[in-house]
Amino acid sequence: MLTQQPLQEFLDNLAGDTAVPGGGSVAATAGAMAAALVSMVCNLTIGREKYAAVEAQMQETLTRSEALRRRLTELVEEDVAAFNAVMNAFKLPKQTEEEKEARRAAIQEGYKQATIVPLETARACAELIRLAKTVIENGNPNAASDGGVAVLCAQAGLKGAALNVLINLSSIKDQAFVSEHQAALDDILAEHDALAHDVYQTLKSGFIGVE
Amino acid sequence: MLTQQPLQEFLDNLAGDTAVPGGGSVAATAGAMAAALVSMVCNLTIGREKYAAVEAQMQETLTRSEALRRRLTELVEEDVAAFNAVMNAFKLPKQTEEEKEARRAAIQEGYKQATIVPLETARACAELIRLAKTVIENGNPNAASDGGVAVLCAQAGLKGAALNVLINLSSIKDQAFVSEHQAALDDILAEHDALAHDVYQTLKSGFIGVE
Repeated sequence: MLTQQPLQEFLDNLAGDTAVPGGGSVAATAGAMAAALVSMVCNLTIGREKYAAVEAQMQETLTRSEALRRRLTELVEEDVAAFNAVMNAFKLPKQTEEEKEARRAAIQEGYKQATIVPLETARACAELIRLAKTVIENGNPNAASDGGVAVLCAQAGLKGAALNVLINLSSIKDQAFVSEHQAALDDILAEHDALAHDVYQTLKSGFIGVE
Repeated sequence: MLTQQPLQEFLDNLAGDTAVPGGGSVAATAGAMAAALVSMVCNLTIGREKYAAVEAQMQETLTRSEALRRRLTELVEEDVAAFNAVMNAFKLPKQTEEEKEARRAAIQEGYKQATIVPLETARACAELIRLAKTVIENGNPNAASDGGVAVLCAQAGLKGAALNVLINLSSIKDQAFVSEHQAALDDILAEHDALAHDVYQTLKSGFIGVE
């Protein structure tokens, strides 16, 4: 399990000359770090009298961010599994017509799975951008910059996952599947990339000249 | 050492109710993941006859990305140390005038260090955006999406480190220090945020409709 490896070893494995773990796992890891930072801001807010008015909202946000963190940690591994499934399908025998057809179907099924995994990463990161906005606006202001880094990591995870969705969609012959998943991605991406941009700019402007 | 912890444990520590590790360490981690992905694309390019023309360039890029990865891994820890130094300065005695003055000086020195650390993270991430551009344009095209995720992580690291620079600068009284470091940050940020945006858009456009 990648997420049981020391961070240093995870980075060493990334840097090596094999295609996985690669960008798909890193996108999910960036999302998991965003989730952890959202949780941190919630935990620095919850239980303090000063922030009693937002206690329920922070509890709710924490429940979601922790659920997304768990899921994104799984997606780090699932990205590797999806890539390996495609590679294994390519290695299937292709002597007879039946073999060729079975191989072709397995490759196509592999690419579909390798699209669905990063699309889920993208969705989770999009939700984290919204959660990070909530903790920046209503959570402990001493941790606002941590909320800001959460937005940036979730944005990197979203856009990085999007690249992985697109590259796999480009190998899929089922045009209905391609259209549906491309449209789903476009919807998530346009809205949340713009939202992340706005949240960051607002936060950054607030930091310049703060005393 | 944070980077000796399993990734899962690192995320658990982030999510907890203490201010460190926090956004500063995450920014450096995002940068270290970017460096690892740049190294990966180099390693998937070097030694292959097909890419002999760019062999020297990829070797040079790999040397830099690995140096930056080592440095960013250290900066993950240095961010925590810099934050703790500020916190410890606040706990110094403040009974006599001498104590007050020593405490004030230690706090100011702490904030300066807590500015210099993320500024170095920002600089390293900026260089990684340029290196990622190089591997996307000239490295093994099968790993182009990994180069793309590298750009996005380096951009998140750069902008996340920038928030940490700004928040600490806002507590520093030495106006010459503030002006100098604010200007240095502005220079790095404007140029490389735009560069990262362009590299991502170009890469993404190329993926849509690729067969």
